Amino acid sequence: MSENGAIKGDICLSEWVKRHGLALLTDWYELTMMGGYHRSGIGDQQACFEYFFRDLPPHNGFAVLAGLEAFLSYCENLRFEEEDIAFLRSSGNFDESFLDSLKSFKLTCNIWAMPEGMVVFPFEPIIRVQGRLFEVQLLETFLLNAMNYPTLVATKAARICSVAGNDPVVEFGLRRAQGPDGGLVGSRAAYIGGCSATSNVLAAKYFGIPVAGTVAHSWVMSFPSELEAFRAYVKIYPDSPILLVDTYDTLESGVPNAIIIFKELQKQGNPQRPAIRLDSGDLAKLSKVAYEMITAAGLNDPLIVASNELDEDLIAELKRQGAKINSWGVGTNLITSKDAPALSGVYKLVAIRSGETWEPRLKISSNPVKMTDPGVKRAVRFYDDDDTPIGDILYLVDEEIPKGEQVIGLDRQRFHRTYRLRPVHRNQELARPCFINGRRTVPPESIQDIRNRAKKQIAALPDELKRLRFPEIYPV
Amino acid sequence: MSENGAIKGDICLSEWVKRHGLALLTDWYELTMMGGYHRSGIGDQQACFEYFFRDLPPHNGFAVLAGLEAFLSYCENLRFEEEDIAFLRSSGNFDESFLDSLKSFKLTCNIWAMPEGMVVFPFEPIIRVQGRLFEVQLLETFLLNAMNYPTLVATKAARICSVAGNDPVVEFGLRRAQGPDGGLVGSRAAYIGGCSATSNVLAAKYFGIPVAGTVAHSWVMSFPSELEAFRAYVKIYPDSPILLVDTYDTLESGVPNAIIIFKELQKQGNPQRPAIRLDSGDLAKLSKVAYEMITAAGLNDPLIVASNELDEDLIAELKRQGAKINSWGVGTNLITSKDAPALSGVYKLVAIRSGETWEPRLKISSNPVKMTDPGVKRAVRFYDDDDTPIGDILYLVDEEIPKGEQVIGLDRQRFHRTYRLRPVHRNQELARPCFINGRRTVPPESIQDIRNRAKKQIAALPDELKRLRFPEIYPV
Repeated sequence: MSENGAIKGDICLSEWVKRHGLALLTDWYELTMMGGYHRSGIGDQQACFEYFFRDLPPHNGFAVLAGLEAFLSYCENLRFEEEDIAFLRSSGNFDESFLDSLKSFKLTCNIWAMPEGMVVFPFEPIIRVQGRLFEVQLLETFLLNAMNYPTLVATKAARICSVAGNDPVVEFGLRRAQGPDGGLVGSRAAYIGGCSATSNVLAAKYFGIPVAGTVAHSWVMSFPSELEAFRAYVKIYPDSPILLVDTYDTLESGVPNAIIIFKELQKQGNPQRPAIRLDSGDLAKLSKVAYEMITAAGLNDPLIVASNELDEDLIAELKRQGAKINSWGVGTNLITSKDAPALSGVYKLVAIRSGETWEPRLKISSNPVKMTDPGVKRAVRFYDDDDTPIGDILYLVDEEIPKGEQVIGLDRQRFHRTYRLRPVHRNQELARPCFINGRRTVPPESIQDIRNRAKKQIAALPDELKRLRFPEIYPV
Repeated sequence: MSENGAIKGDICLSEWVKRHGLALLTDWYELTMMGGYHRSGIGDQQACFEYFFRDLPPHNGFAVLAGLEAFLSYCENLRFEEEDIAFLRSSGNFDESFLDSLKSFKLTCNIWAMPEGMVVFPFEPIIRVQGRLFEVQLLETFLLNAMNYPTLVATKAARICSVAGNDPVVEFGLRRAQGPDGGLVGSRAAYIGGCSATSNVLAAKYFGIPVAGTVAHSWVMSFPSELEAFRAYVKIYPDSPILLVDTYDTLESGVPNAIIIFKELQKQGNPQRPAIRLDSGDLAKLSKVAYEMITAAGLNDPLIVASNELDEDLIAELKRQGAKINSWGVGTNLITSKDAPALSGVYKLVAIRSGETWEPRLKISSNPVKMTDPGVKRAVRFYDDDDTPIGDILYLVDEEIPKGEQVIGLDRQRFHRTYRLRPVHRNQELARPCFINGRRTVPPESIQDIRNRAKKQIAALPDELKRLRFPEIYPV
C-alpha cells in the first residue's frame, strides 16, 4: 500500500499472457461461417467490420478504452495448430479443403484502432478491420472478449478514482474476479483507469504495475494476541507497517494496540507514518474516532486505509460525511464492474468491397438501436480553444474533414438530428493504423504511457461528463 | 444448436487450462504474511481454514458448486519458478532464507471438499484446508478465484435452465465474458449448471462440452440477398440449417425466405426440421407469428431459437405469454451473472492446532455477518423418507452425528436460534478428503458426472427452494 510496498516489474509478458492456442477461443459460428465462405467461394471478398459499443455503463458520461494490446498480440500470433484442426475435423462439419486452408492461415488484413487510454463514446468505430471476409469474420469473438471487459473496468476505475480525488485507490479484486484473467486483465485495466497499485502479484510481474497489500485477519489470529501480531509484523516489515485493526474490536483493541506499536517504533528511532486498515463496521465513524485517538497520542498524519465493499457511491458518501480515510482498497465492485458487468460492444459488418469502392451494408432491426451505421467510417474529435473536446463526428473515410470555427454533426444516438460544434480550434482523427497487410505496425505501449494518456484525457473532459449521475451526453 | 452441431471432445486439458506459473497469481499480502510467518518461526504451526460464502446470489434458494477441479489441479502443480523468486527478490521485501524456502515449496497439507455439482448453502464449510500456516495461507487467493466465479455461473445456469424446462439452453457468452477464462471457465460452469451446449469452441475442446451455433448477420449481409445467403448456408450445412431471420425484416423477409428454403430442402428429399433464430424485436410476438407462418406453409414443428439479452425473468415472461420458442441462446446475463456478478465466498482461519487439539479461532466484527464460525467443522445433510434434503447441520469434526428421527440444528443465519429437522431418514457428510499429505487422492471427475450430480441434486430439492423470487430459506 505504501510506496515502499511497490515493485515495478519489467514488462516481460510470459506465455501465460501471450498465449498460444487461441484460434479456437471463438464462437462455433465463426468457424462454420468461415467454412461456408470458403465453400461458397466468397472468402476472398473484401469486407470491413467495425467494433463499437451502443451504451455506456449506466450513469457514465464516457468510457476509457483498454484491451487493444491483447487483441493486437492475438492478431500477430493467430495460427491453427494441428490439434485444433484435428478437433474441427472430428466434428464432421468441415471439408478437407477448408481444414487444409487453416493449416497455412495467417492474417493479411488491415486494422485501424484508437489507442488504449483514450476516452471513447457510444457508436464510434473504435476498431476498424478490413480484409478478406474469410479471416476478418474470425476476429469477431476474440476482439469482443479482449476489448469489452478491460474497457469496462478501466471506465469503472476512472469513475472510482475521480471520486477518491488525490487519495490512492488500490485494486484488491483477484479473489472475486471472474476467472484468473478476470483478475489479471482486470488489474491492468484498473491501473490504466487510474488505480495506484494492485494486490495481484502476477499482474505486477507481467505488466509492471506497483503491487501493494496490508495483512489479513488470519495473521492477527495466528498470534497469541493482537499486540504480539502487530509487533511481529512491524518487526519484519518496518517500512510498510499498515496494521489491520478490526479483528477483535477496532476502537477498544485494534487502534489502541496500533498506537502502542507506533509509539514503540518512534522510541526505537524508526518514526514511521502511523498506518491502519479498517475492513468492517462504520468506516466514516471509525475513521474519525481512530484519527482522533492516533493524533491525540501524539502521532501525526495517520494513513487510514479502508476496504469492504467500496465503490464510487460509497466513497463519495464517506467523504461527504468527513471520513478520515486517505487510501481506498477496492475489490469486488471494481474488478467485476458489479453494477454493470458487461459492456455491449459489438463487431459489425459495415461494407463489402465491390471493385474499387466500398459498398455500405446496413442491418435493419425492429430494435432501432440495433440497426448498424453503414459505410467505412472514421471518428474525428473536435477541440475548442482550451483544448477541451467538444464533440466527435463520424465521417466516411473518403470524406473530407471540414475546416472552420463551426462544424455540423449527425447525432448517432438520436437519429436524424444534427448538432453544431463550435468554436472549433483543432481536430484529431482518433484511430490510427496498427496492423497493415497482416503485420503489426505499432509497438506495444508501456502501461505508464497508456495510463498517462487516460489521465490527461479525463482531466481535459468537462466536469459535466464526470458527474456520477445523469452526466451530460457528449455529442457523437 | 441441433444435436448434429454437437462435438464432444476428449477431456484433454492443455497447458492453457492447467497452467504453470500460478504461484504469483495471488494477493501480495499472502506472500508478505508467508514471509512473516517464516521469520517469526510460526510457519509450521498447524492451521485450519474454511471456504464458505455468506450470501446466495439475490433471489436464489440454493447454489451449485463448481470450480474444484481447477483448485485441486493448482494444488498439485503449485511451485515457485526461478523467475517468480527473482521477481519477489527484486521487491527488496523478503529475506533470502524465505526466498530459499520457496525453491523447494510443495504443499503437504490436507484438503476436504464437497464435490462439484453439489447443491450448497451459505455458511457451510465447502472446502476445509488443514496444514502448515506457511502454506495454507498461500492457497487463499487462488482458491477464492477458482471457486467463486464458477459457482456463481453454475448457479445462474441452473436458475435459467429451470425456467426453460425441457427446452435446451445454449451458452453464448464468450464475447461478453470477463477475459478469456471468464469465457472458458464460465462455459464449463454453465454446462455443469444445466446448459445443453456452448458456442465456445475452446471450451468444447478442453472440457468435452457439446458445441453449437447458428449464423451471424454478417453472413446474411455478405451475400447479394437474404435468400441467396440462406440457400448457400443450407447447401453447405444441410444437417443444421438454423436460419437467422432478423437481418432485414423478420416477418416480411426473413421468415418467408426461410420457408422457401425449407420447402426447397423438402423437394430435394432432405426434409430437415425447419429452424430459425430470432435475435431482435418482440420475441413473443415474432415467434408466434413465425410459427403460424411456418406451419401454415406445411412445415411441421419448427425449431425457434431465440437470443438477445435473455435471462431467467425474460424467459419466464416469454413463456407466460405463450411464445413459440423452444431453444434459448443465453449470453451476457449468464456468463457474467449480470444481476449479481460476484459470489461472496471467503477463506477464513477457524482453528490453530495446539498440541493434540484444535483451538478454535474467532474473528469478532462490528458487522455481525462478518464474524467467523470457529472450530474445525463438517457439514452433514439430512434427508427425509422421500430422499428430499431437509436441512444441513454443521458439527465439529470430533462431534458425533446424532441418530434418530429428529435432529436439532443451530441456525447459522439467525444466530442463537435452533431448529428441528424431521423426519430424518438418512444423513450424508458432504465433504470428502481430496488431497492428503500433499497428494491428490481423488481423480478428476468427468464433466458429465458432475453435470448429472447437479441435475439429480436440483431435482431432489423441494420446489419452494427453486422459486425465482423469495424462495424458502434452507436450514443450515
